[in-house]
Amino acid sequence: MDQTKQKNKTNTVYIGKKPTMAYVLACITQLSEGNSEITIRARGRTISQAVDVAEVVRNKFVKDASVKNIVIGTEELESKDGQMLNVSSIEIVLGRK
Amino acid sequence: MDQTKQKNKTNTVYIGKKPTMAYVLACITQLSEGNSEITIRARGRTISQAVDVAEVVRNKFVKDASVKNIVIGTEELESKDGQMLNVSSIEIVLGRK
Repeated sequence: MDQTKQKNKTNTVYIGKKPTMAYVLACITQLSEGNSEITIRARGRTISQAVDVAEVVRNKFVKDASVKNIVIGTEELESKDGQMLNVSSIEIVLGRK
Repeated sequence: MDQTKQKNKTNTVYIGKKPTMAYVLACITQLSEGNSEITIRARGRTISQAVDVAEVVRNKFVKDASVKNIVIGTEELESKDGQMLNVSSIEIVLGRK
């Protein structure tokens, strides 16, 4: 599922329910494949995990990577019972220096 | 506790264990007291809540407020058993346009 999403829009890693290190690995892979910038996206409770992923990547693995931009926003989602919910989102752009 | 922290360093709202709306109210109060900028700070799992607070403040209550800057980082904390833990942190600066 996640793999497909990443192929559809390259350079983007969507944070879901996997362990943090799975996304760290996805980021490292994309950065080492020649992408100079990657975008980490998350919604709701996984926002904290997106920050963890970005921090682990740049502090532990890709030392020349830095945070280029961070954008926060709100997305409207429809819940199972048809109600509209506002969910916060984050987009962290990591790039090589 | 939170009140004391806010007095020690004005313009800063630390996200802790209270409901989101408690922090939204703290932000609105500080912005209406004449502060042109406020900083929302959070660590670990509360990072998502910090984004929620910023989004609710600027979308629902202080329409002329916008995100001026976002910084993420890592803080080292000592756990109860003496181990060092890395915890991600976020700092969101909200300001009036």
